[in-house]
Amino acid sequence: MTTFFRVIALFCVGALLAMTTANPTRVVFFGDSITQAGVNPGGYIDRLKSLLPANQYELIGAGIGGNKIYDLYLRMDDDVLAKKPDVVVVWVGVNDVWHKASSGTGTDADKFVRFYEAVVKKLQAANARVVLCTPAAIGEKTDMSNQQDGDLNQYSQLIRDIAKKNNLPLVDLRKAFLDYNLKHNPDNKEKGILTTDRVHLNEAGNQFVAEQMQKVLATLK
Amino acid sequence: MTTFFRVIALFCVGALLAMTTANPTRVVFFGDSITQAGVNPGGYIDRLKSLLPANQYELIGAGIGGNKIYDLYLRMDDDVLAKKPDVVVVWVGVNDVWHKASSGTGTDADKFVRFYEAVVKKLQAANARVVLCTPAAIGEKTDMSNQQDGDLNQYSQLIRDIAKKNNLPLVDLRKAFLDYNLKHNPDNKEKGILTTDRVHLNEAGNQFVAEQMQKVLATLK
Amino acid sequence: MTTFFRVIALFCVGALLAMTTANPTRVVFFGDSITQAGVNPGGYIDRLKSLLPANQYELIGAGIGGNKIYDLYLRMDDDVLAKKPDVVVVWVGVNDVWHKASSGTGTDADKFVRFYEAVVKKLQAANARVVLCTPAAIGEKTDMSNQQDGDLNQYSQLIRDIAKKNNLPLVDLRKAFLDYNLKHNPDNKEKGILTTDRVHLNEAGNQFVAEQMQKVLATLK
Amino acid sequence: MTTFFRVIALFCVGALLAMTTANPTRVVFFGDSITQAGVNPGGYIDRLKSLLPANQYELIGAGIGGNKIYDLYLRMDDDVLAKKPDVVVVWVGVNDVWHKASSGTGTDADKFVRFYEAVVKKLQAANARVVLCTPAAIGEKTDMSNQQDGDLNQYSQLIRDIAKKNNLPLVDLRKAFLDYNLKHNPDNKEKGILTTDRVHLNEAGNQFVAEQMQKVLATLK
Repeated sequence: MTTFFRVIALFCVGALLAMTTANPTRVVFFGDSITQAGVNPGGYIDRLKSLLPANQYELIGAGIGGNKIYDLYLRMDDDVLAKKPDVVVVWVGVNDVWHKASSGTGTDADKFVRFYEAVVKKLQAANARVVLCTPAAIGEKTDMSNQQDGDLNQYSQLIRDIAKKNNLPLVDLRKAFLDYNLKHNPDNKEKGILTTDRVHLNEAGNQFVAEQMQKVLATLK
Repeated sequence: MTTFFRVIALFCVGALLAMTTANPTRVVFFGDSITQAGVNPGGYIDRLKSLLPANQYELIGAGIGGNKIYDLYLRMDDDVLAKKPDVVVVWVGVNDVWHKASSGTGTDADKFVRFYEAVVKKLQAANARVVLCTPAAIGEKTDMSNQQDGDLNQYSQLIRDIAKKNNLPLVDLRKAFLDYNLKHNPDNKEKGILTTDRVHLNEAGNQFVAEQMQKVLATLK
Repeated sequence: MTTFFRVIALFCVGALLAMTTANPTRVVFFGDSITQAGVNPGGYIDRLKSLLPANQYELIGAGIGGNKIYDLYLRMDDDVLAKKPDVVVVWVGVNDVWHKASSGTGTDADKFVRFYEAVVKKLQAANARVVLCTPAAIGEKTDMSNQQDGDLNQYSQLIRDIAKKNNLPLVDLRKAFLDYNLKHNPDNKEKGILTTDRVHLNEAGNQFVAEQMQKVLATLK
Repeated sequence: MTTFFRVIALFCVGALLAMTTANPTRVVFFGDSITQAGVNPGGYIDRLKSLLPANQYELIGAGIGGNKIYDLYLRMDDDVLAKKPDVVVVWVGVNDVWHKASSGTGTDADKFVRFYEAVVKKLQAANARVVLCTPAAIGEKTDMSNQQDGDLNQYSQLIRDIAKKNNLPLVDLRKAFLDYNLKHNPDNKEKGILTTDRVHLNEAGNQFVAEQMQKVLATLK
């Protein structure tokens, strides 16, 4: 009989494990070129896997280069909702600001908020938990003399306000990157600390972002 | 008795006619500052009333200054669909192009099409007949040397393509304004022919647009 | 004889006074719309007169709205050198940055330096003492979230570098305005502290700038 | 004696030939990236050599990528006047227009004229014959729907006006490219007819420009 119960017990444990592995938390990272590169070997999503408990998470990249908030809005049905995510990490904003200078097609601040809130609302309606991120950097100089610093600070604040208003977890990468650079960028360089080219993540940057993402996912348990 | 029924029959016909006049065709003009001004005395919507058969149309202005195609998208529920229109005349595009230069927040051509088609689709889903218009002008010079001529020609073509693809009536104001100026603007002036300031309609412009709108509404009967 | 020498002495004193009043230090303020408004009653140049010793300075405004550094370069012969100034206060930069967003015709950072140095060189060749100023503000928010803060910080640093390299006195209005706002703008307002409209000076702003100018002129004696 | 005179005559002819070869017409092509590439094998300057009479011309390229009219102004002493040219062909304008959209640092139309005229004046003061060119294209579509067509048409007209006012030879490449495309670009393609990428010359484009340049140089004899 003892043996019998042991077998039963083992069976139950096995079943629980099976259920766990069968239903990991599905996380979609929804963003721009930074996230598109995040799924590559060494990218932040790739690195995040090794920082998370085995078999408990399924990480999906949904980043497309050049995307602004309304690009996310336009493609969210196909690229995010169709995947029935448990958690969606929205990381966008660099192009909304950058395209003002590079092609004249950036996003007005008030429209940025309107579309951002529409994205959040629609994700929540699909029962996804939503995590917001601020845009990290266009240039790593610490004296606020990167051309887009003013706008990045403004749009980051808009995202912080949306997070607060909707009681959503926030990964404040804008603040985190600046704090990191204040410590590790004494020469006020514009790139090479966490980015390769002022925007996209180098090895340290990918590791840094992976760690920030790991922390926020831990709070969602 | 026969006479009695005849009287009854005539009465019924009269009542039906009365019902017809009680339910004029409701037309919403959906656009930017040009349309916002169109409801003013002497504006194109105001002038259009006198060009249309009495009691058969209800004309509603839904123009807001500075609007781009995605502004229309964001506010169409409240400002258009809530009014249960029979016909919606969409006239937008000047700001999608102009804001590239004036604030860095114009609309990418591909996104212009995406949002434009989304607006059309949603209006049709609400059983409204949709009329498209091309953006008329930012400057009236006829030698194609107005700064935004290239973009206006491109975005107008995008609208023509959407009209054709969806078999929708089109008021090609871009072409109509150019044709008018080729006849009436021999000195290649940038304003003062149909506009006061290169964009907004003067008296002749309001009358001209009213006539174009009258023609297209006549075809919808 | 005593009377004779008294007369001579009085004559000499009179002559000296006459020379003094006949040769006040001629200061030209060379800049944009802020300086154009500076000569108005209550403007910073007007206020500066009452802060300076009587009869020792002649203050001339040479500001034109919308001017960028290369506008100054193009008109310096007529508007500044022709007036044979002893001192030229160059205050420019807001439009070099602002026009990037408002009309797509801002000034590249490297070209800003090239023309700025050309202006300085030409003024010095005409034996004028040159005073440099940093552009004060486009928005008074203190959290570096005014859209042009990044560029204003960068271009201000370029001017500081030119001042240092050429050993020229500098009125660091960018820094002074920020310091003032950090004390007097606790609500992070974008205007109304030293400016009326984020750029142009209100009463307090004109007084503040006049005081800064008074200080630098005092050091040139 | 006859022989003696024959020898003298031959000597004189030889001397004249020597003088000719010793003093070819020195032509500097002063411009942007299109001209920078023009000196490469197969580039328009390289091709022009074979179109010109042997030994009568020295062709010098002075093109730098990204240059606008005021870049030419700033570097003309070192890069053009120092070479004591007989003829200077000025070909600029694409970046003055293009940088409005690509970096917010295009050139205002009135400033374009100011600097252009300053370049012409300074070249003429150095006894160089000056040839003007209009900017050819940013996109080869023939229906005037290339984004910068409006501005390119305007700035080309400004150059035509300067040429006319100063009685200078003009190579109207804007018009020539459009005429060529109207014949050879029936599908309204944006590139591939005379350009590789809407701006820079392909093989046909380099040959076409070389021929235009050959024609204008022939008129200067």
